[in-house]
Amino acid sequence: MGNKNISMAVIRRLPKYYRYLGELLEDDVQRISSKELSEIIGFTASQIRQDLNNFGGFGQQGYGYNVEALHAEIGKILGLDKPYNAILIGVGNLGQAITNYSGFRNSGFEIKALFDANPRMIGLKIRDLEILDSDTIEEYIKKHDIDIAIVCIPKNGAQELIDRIVGAGIKGIWNFAPIDLEVPKGIIVENVNLTESLFTLSYLMKETAENK
Amino acid sequence: MGNKNISMAVIRRLPKYYRYLGELLEDDVQRISSKELSEIIGFTASQIRQDLNNFGGFGQQGYGYNVEALHAEIGKILGLDKPYNAILIGVGNLGQAITNYSGFRNSGFEIKALFDANPRMIGLKIRDLEILDSDTIEEYIKKHDIDIAIVCIPKNGAQELIDRIVGAGIKGIWNFAPIDLEVPKGIIVENVNLTESLFTLSYLMKETAENK
Repeated sequence: MGNKNISMAVIRRLPKYYRYLGELLEDDVQRISSKELSEIIGFTASQIRQDLNNFGGFGQQGYGYNVEALHAEIGKILGLDKPYNAILIGVGNLGQAITNYSGFRNSGFEIKALFDANPRMIGLKIRDLEILDSDTIEEYIKKHDIDIAIVCIPKNGAQELIDRIVGAGIKGIWNFAPIDLEVPKGIIVENVNLTESLFTLSYLMKETAENK
Repeated sequence: MGNKNISMAVIRRLPKYYRYLGELLEDDVQRISSKELSEIIGFTASQIRQDLNNFGGFGQQGYGYNVEALHAEIGKILGLDKPYNAILIGVGNLGQAITNYSGFRNSGFEIKALFDANPRMIGLKIRDLEILDSDTIEEYIKKHDIDIAIVCIPKNGAQELIDRIVGAGIKGIWNFAPIDLEVPKGIIVENVNLTESLFTLSYLMKETAENK
């Protein structure tokens, strides 16, 4: 399917559609109008129709959207119709939180191995996953067909590690290190920058206080 | 200052400017052109000039930007020139990771207390902060002038907790629970939705693979 030229703003809204449609499915809701969807998601009905039209328009006049079909289709657009093999690097508190969160596995992202550079961590287990030595990471990626690396290490040394794992064949990086990574074309980096999120909260609070 | 009508896209870029300018300051860089800034941050020089013009234009032709002044001014715009008192609710792995991260404190966000509903957690300490009983949270907020709640609890029960803490006077919520919270007008919620971020990574990986 040629989903070219779809703006990142639309793309960033799709996971939210996917999540709400999943919840509707769990509640056995079979069809829904853009107006009803609007009340649940909080986007306007017109925004919803426009967004979903980008992908070929799944709605039918007077019927609305078939929840299951729309959920499956958005899942497909998001690339969630096939499983991903992931590794997680840096098993501190944040790395452990991500390892323990079952929601990712339910969406097809399976963490196959954990890595840490700290000798005291190596050999410990979290959720039946042994923590392996970071020195062996390239070998592991090549041998086990790993798509995604979840990077939970500090800033120092992060770029060097990225160069190594990209060289070994990683295609996507979910990056929690507070650094803008440099990667070759074709490698995807999705950053989770908590400090930037916190600063946005601060800005909005300040603006609200000033406009009272 | 009347920073009305500035788009959220610009606002979301400001923390990045702030971070890079802070790093330049640490390296004793005193002035910088939009072109040099562009090479470091990755936005175009024209984008940078346009963004910073929103706030009154700190650059001077032929001189560039004064790094220290620009850093201070953006910090002020972001509301980082005054400290915030925060509490953290839900001391699981993620809550512990956030408690242990020193970067927030360096930016003026101080976690004053931790709360959990699990009796086995109550009374334990993390970084000299005792974990308090969630039942006492409203009392604590009122007594200690708390601005921000960092919410790291599961989805179930999250809205109920939010109603309680907003009633007690919380003005800003940094929300890690995978739920869209309902709050009264004037209360700011900044969501960190990890699943949506992961799905975006998946989408971009799929698109890249298909366009090869």
